[in-house]
Amino acid sequence: NEDSKDLTLFPLPPTSNPPTSVLEVDKKTPDAHVPRDPRLIRLTGVHPFNVEAPLSALYNEGFLTTPELFYVRNHGPVPLVEDEDIPTWEFTVEGLVENPITISLKELIEDYEQLTAPITLVCAGNRRKEQNVVRKTKGFSWGAAGVSTALWTGCLMSEVIRRAKPIRRARYVCMEGADKLPNGYYGTSVKLNWVMDPNRGIMLAHKMNGEMLRPDHGKPLRAVIPGQIGGRSVKWLKKLILTDQPSDNWYHIYDNRVLPTMVSPEESASNPSWWKDDRYAIYGLSTNSAIAYPAHEEQLCIVGAPQKYRVKGYAYGGDGRRVTRVEVSIDKGKTWRLSNIDYAEDRYREGYEQNLYGGSLDVPWRESSFCWCFWAIDIPVEELKGAKDILVRAMDESMNIQPRDLYWSVLGMMNNPWYRITISHENDYLRFEHPTQPALIPGGWMERVKKSGGNLMNGYWGERIDGVEPEAP
Amino acid sequence: NEDSKDLTLFPLPPTSNPPTSVLEVDKKTPDAHVPRDPRLIRLTGVHPFNVEAPLSALYNEGFLTTPELFYVRNHGPVPLVEDEDIPTWEFTVEGLVENPITISLKELIEDYEQLTAPITLVCAGNRRKEQNVVRKTKGFSWGAAGVSTALWTGCLMSEVIRRAKPIRRARYVCMEGADKLPNGYYGTSVKLNWVMDPNRGIMLAHKMNGEMLRPDHGKPLRAVIPGQIGGRSVKWLKKLILTDQPSDNWYHIYDNRVLPTMVSPEESASNPSWWKDDRYAIYGLSTNSAIAYPAHEEQLCIVGAPQKYRVKGYAYGGDGRRVTRVEVSIDKGKTWRLSNIDYAEDRYREGYEQNLYGGSLDVPWRESSFCWCFWAIDIPVEELKGAKDILVRAMDESMNIQPRDLYWSVLGMMNNPWYRITISHENDYLRFEHPTQPALIPGGWMERVKKSGGNLMNGYWGERIDGVEPEAP
Repeated sequence: NEDSKDLTLFPLPPTSNPPTSVLEVDKKTPDAHVPRDPRLIRLTGVHPFNVEAPLSALYNEGFLTTPELFYVRNHGPVPLVEDEDIPTWEFTVEGLVENPITISLKELIEDYEQLTAPITLVCAGNRRKEQNVVRKTKGFSWGAAGVSTALWTGCLMSEVIRRAKPIRRARYVCMEGADKLPNGYYGTSVKLNWVMDPNRGIMLAHKMNGEMLRPDHGKPLRAVIPGQIGGRSVKWLKKLILTDQPSDNWYHIYDNRVLPTMVSPEESASNPSWWKDDRYAIYGLSTNSAIAYPAHEEQLCIVGAPQKYRVKGYAYGGDGRRVTRVEVSIDKGKTWRLSNIDYAEDRYREGYEQNLYGGSLDVPWRESSFCWCFWAIDIPVEELKGAKDILVRAMDESMNIQPRDLYWSVLGMMNNPWYRITISHENDYLRFEHPTQPALIPGGWMERVKKSGGNLMNGYWGERIDGVEPEAP
Repeated sequence: NEDSKDLTLFPLPPTSNPPTSVLEVDKKTPDAHVPRDPRLIRLTGVHPFNVEAPLSALYNEGFLTTPELFYVRNHGPVPLVEDEDIPTWEFTVEGLVENPITISLKELIEDYEQLTAPITLVCAGNRRKEQNVVRKTKGFSWGAAGVSTALWTGCLMSEVIRRAKPIRRARYVCMEGADKLPNGYYGTSVKLNWVMDPNRGIMLAHKMNGEMLRPDHGKPLRAVIPGQIGGRSVKWLKKLILTDQPSDNWYHIYDNRVLPTMVSPEESASNPSWWKDDRYAIYGLSTNSAIAYPAHEEQLCIVGAPQKYRVKGYAYGGDGRRVTRVEVSIDKGKTWRLSNIDYAEDRYREGYEQNLYGGSLDVPWRESSFCWCFWAIDIPVEELKGAKDILVRAMDESMNIQPRDLYWSVLGMMNNPWYRITISHENDYLRFEHPTQPALIPGGWMERVKKSGGNLMNGYWGERIDGVEPEAP
């Protein structure tokens, strides 16, 4: 019986403890107006603010992330927007439209249908530290926590664009934020075709988990582009410009691209045509997964341990594609075990037309998967004792599977090889190591292998193959 | 200047020499009414007719394939449809619709807008022989020529469905053919949502390269589902049935699925629940590529050879995603070279609103890539002399890259690891070997490696790694 379903089965956000004071470290920066959570790991020094949560803390919050632990990618100073100025925050829809319009946030909320949807955002640089250990890229070192999920409230971007009446020649929607940077305001574009496609759910959001956006997340208005890299979800949104060409914004051209692997930093600098080839711009996320537990440097006492240990983590697909399986290996990929997957996103599909945070829950009719999922598998401790590592790989509904091999590129993005943690047996303990630690934090098996001369790109994580000696460095 | 573009730049089909007589081998089968090309390689004995062209012959035809060399996947006898009965061929739109309708082919052509588009079809089993060498699957042995491209003429499936007025509960379009099989008529389903999405270009086609469909290709009417596995493009189409559940047709449940790799034939037979999990059904193609030249057993005389050899082949993505790069390695994946790519499909985008074969060329406005592309790279013969193999991998616009590792599954489908050919140096010749040959044809490096005890799944094609001995079998 449809009516008897409990409509509150879907996850609600974990308790948030919004930071109220500005951290000492931020006080001498342009962001001295932004209270922040001290647990966040800074990836680019003090400023600009680019952070991820410790992986365990992120995972422990569950399917939805609090705004204070949600990853942040800022290119420069956070625009200061006073609360009293929020209703009159204006943005424009211009360019190849018949009817250019200026809309205030107040109008956006009053005149357009509001909806709420859970959407995972992922930085294209998620897991980049692994690439940086192999060979330094131009990007800073994300660990595996450059991914977070929230309930976003706002309207469909297509609705405002429809009112502006795009002309036939319009093919792209360029977005521009209020964050002024050395190379102009941050901006990028997506295809108009995608924006107008209801299945893609591209939003203009003003709430995150039911509260007004916080400064680091785009207060008071941002784009949210589900299934695509975070860099397309422009924060502090001021302009939508319809064009017949992709954005010519500096950040659109010189960021968020995966050049072919053989293009060196020198070649990319001396030959700008690499950056102008639109095929190398990235939009949809690639399939990815990571292990949250065992955590890095977790130790499992095998004396009196329970029979089984639960290995668990997250996975996500791109462009709305569902993760259809997550497989785990403890014998270097010779054999794989099927993990259980919890698709928390699916539980919102039951909440048809329910209102949440002032928007209707816009999930039930959708057939796309725009959120991460959590996977878990119990492995007998006896078997872990005999294993050297744990590997995980996810596959999406188009059979896109995470590969064994890391794809290095000059900007270091979309890193998604099998996630591997190593197991070492020390006295009565199993000790686990993740591949890396974020930012400049030392640790992880990759640094260790590299230091000892292993070739991390040899298809076997720089280690020996079944009793034979490793290749010389 | 838009107007000065030469609108005939797009490829037209190669000259077809339609077979006119029934082959001796077919005369005692239910297909004794179907003339066929003797060059086709039969993959399932004499009958049913499942064939691919020799890879070189397929590649040599170019971007478009003649109907006589276009791969065929038949589950049983080909329905006999006389030419005079074609106009009155009827199909129905029924199920969860307000207005069930019956449409004749004559009405379909007269009452619905006709369009023509180049679309590549690919059998989900393309390259399965490689999987079968690793470990026998339940599927027969396709080589790498289970892929072909034609210009299809017909109407959008969405148009006929719109006239039938789907009711709100409808979510799937089940299709049924006229081919009666041991387990009923062949049938399958796709999402209604996809059918109604103009970007997906799902068609009802009655012409192939400008001529009426030939019997093996669905005469007189078939579905054409771009970007998805061939098994969804139902031939000899009789019924479109709208439902709230995926098709319960036997062939939908027990075919065209990729079960997790650890599910053995025995397990899949004894536990039917594996077949009922919709996550394992496959729709969109995975990214794939193959080398056409050097051909299998091609020999290159290195005495007086030109300085460079042109390595070339095909690549395709799934669900309309463009292949954004093709990379070639001659050092076992340590380094990669960027190949040139010819996107012949893009040349049709210039032919806006041109009429072709009685349909308007419905490509220009589309931003999806529904066709294979051809790649080529010149490699100095001096370098080939020092190489042991040639590897190729493609990546699509969502960064889905072909993996090093073969994913074995019980039905053996969607095989897409790096395509590898080996090079052996014999006197004054370089001799090239493809991984396999289709059907039961012997040959290829995989059989050779397997016979010599190599473990094909060791991440190094069963061979030694840089001077160390291979793992014992």
